[in-house]
Amino acid sequence: MVSFELIILGSSSALPTSKRSTSAHLLSIGERFFLIDCGEGTQSQLRKFRLSPARINHIFISHLHGDHVFGLFGLISSMGMMGRNATLHLYGPGAMEEMMRAHFNFFGDPTFPVQYHKAGDKQIVYEDSKVEVMALLLKHRTETFGYVFKEKSRLLNINKARIEEYGLGLADIKKVKEGEDFTTSAGKLIPNAILTLPPFRTRSYAYISDSAAKPEIIPYIKDVDLLYHEATFLSQDAELAAKTMHSTAAQAAHMAALAKAGKLLIGHFSTRYKNETSFLNEATEIFEPTIAVNDGDRFTVEQQRISADEL
Amino acid sequence: MVSFELIILGSSSALPTSKRSTSAHLLSIGERFFLIDCGEGTQSQLRKFRLSPARINHIFISHLHGDHVFGLFGLISSMGMMGRNATLHLYGPGAMEEMMRAHFNFFGDPTFPVQYHKAGDKQIVYEDSKVEVMALLLKHRTETFGYVFKEKSRLLNINKARIEEYGLGLADIKKVKEGEDFTTSAGKLIPNAILTLPPFRTRSYAYISDSAAKPEIIPYIKDVDLLYHEATFLSQDAELAAKTMHSTAAQAAHMAALAKAGKLLIGHFSTRYKNETSFLNEATEIFEPTIAVNDGDRFTVEQQRISADEL
Repeated sequence: MVSFELIILGSSSALPTSKRSTSAHLLSIGERFFLIDCGEGTQSQLRKFRLSPARINHIFISHLHGDHVFGLFGLISSMGMMGRNATLHLYGPGAMEEMMRAHFNFFGDPTFPVQYHKAGDKQIVYEDSKVEVMALLLKHRTETFGYVFKEKSRLLNINKARIEEYGLGLADIKKVKEGEDFTTSAGKLIPNAILTLPPFRTRSYAYISDSAAKPEIIPYIKDVDLLYHEATFLSQDAELAAKTMHSTAAQAAHMAALAKAGKLLIGHFSTRYKNETSFLNEATEIFEPTIAVNDGDRFTVEQQRISADEL
Repeated sequence: MVSFELIILGSSSALPTSKRSTSAHLLSIGERFFLIDCGEGTQSQLRKFRLSPARINHIFISHLHGDHVFGLFGLISSMGMMGRNATLHLYGPGAMEEMMRAHFNFFGDPTFPVQYHKAGDKQIVYEDSKVEVMALLLKHRTETFGYVFKEKSRLLNINKARIEEYGLGLADIKKVKEGEDFTTSAGKLIPNAILTLPPFRTRSYAYISDSAAKPEIIPYIKDVDLLYHEATFLSQDAELAAKTMHSTAAQAAHMAALAKAGKLLIGHFSTRYKNETSFLNEATEIFEPTIAVNDGDRFTVEQQRISADEL
């Protein structure tokens, strides 16, 4: 079974609190560790939650405000001290490379390669055999991207018991996975449905921060299992939210409803409010399956076979 | 009573651990808040220990390695968001200004003035009516300064009960504090000893990190109440200490013994060792009043009048 787990490393907005570190999420899909944003203290949060920084090869940066990037310097420095050789891939706004180069120019280049990937609106910025990541341009005071992490459409799963039973070779298995029937050496036709199990549902996670609500992105986050949408303000401060290009809890919930998300996770709460209860109340009125996240929270999406009527 | 308290904000060496943040100390002398080094996460440590970043006007930086400065970016950014107007004074190696300017160049200048003070060996880098701070050049892989914080020699304390009794005016009080006798309007000579109390002892704290042991600084840290001396390694790794220009616990203890320090505080432990017990064992064999510090530790030096035989 391939795991699909999101771990909240930091859930505060611009100012950290005694309970909340600045923005950072870790999405683990099987062996893959995707770090999303890297506020100050991210390396300490990783250690606190017993996640090895060495396992991170891909970091996705939403935008170049301090509370989303100031942890990069320490994390990359520590990766070097820990003896890293593997290439580190950084995805983000175009100016990210300039920012990192200016930093390395003063503090010295890392001992391992760093590769920069400039994000573009609705572009697949990362892809491997099982996962793809799309960047979505958001609405904030500087160039800002959300990221949608999606398992790729899966082939049919072969029913292992049938391989031996009917004597399938490797080439046969490949064809059967693509939907073909199989003819045995004795000339008997075995329908595909007998040889296969339904594929797994493709799981997905969307990270939308920082941004004013942007309904134009809905088609790209449709049916996402987990939607993280920033909720910096309450509706009572909607004007301030608009001015600073952030969202209210109600706006985040409205986005989740439009997207028909499985769950809405809200965070990036302004420190002007005492606690997260008001955020949760405001959001759940519009979209019930909402969670106000805390540092250390973990959310798992289970692997499920597509049911017959979905096929 | 004027307080004199040191608070350990971060006690790890290059890599933070789940228990230790990277280097940062806060020395509070009365209303003054002196921050010494500012590793990543310092602003979070300040919040955790309920110390307001707004009260910090002076930051002393030992050297420009990440584990001593990466917290500056977030702390300064947060000070701005919290509405700071007061000038922030930064003391440190000459290249610190270039480092900060390069950073501000990318992320924008702070909304409040920042003033840079280039440290020099054995120079008083800060001085006010009650406190002075001397920089000491250390032995490390880059230009590195230790800092000695000292209360100034205090004038005699006037015995308030005598002011009214003998009818002293403001000008008289000033002279008496400087050691003069007083003649009443009736022509009676009142000896100084009757009018005054002994002065308080001047309290002091020395921060020595990062550095190989440098006995040449002993005259400048002589009789210090609290000596923080880094102890990155154990004697078994003395060669590595020499190569990286750090100290062993035994070397730190030897420095404390030479300086006749009141207490030795050791920290900056390499993460290669399981815990601090071995450091403490090694140091106390040479200098008994040694403490292996932890994040959050507080050390107070009480105000004491100089005893008659010290005068």
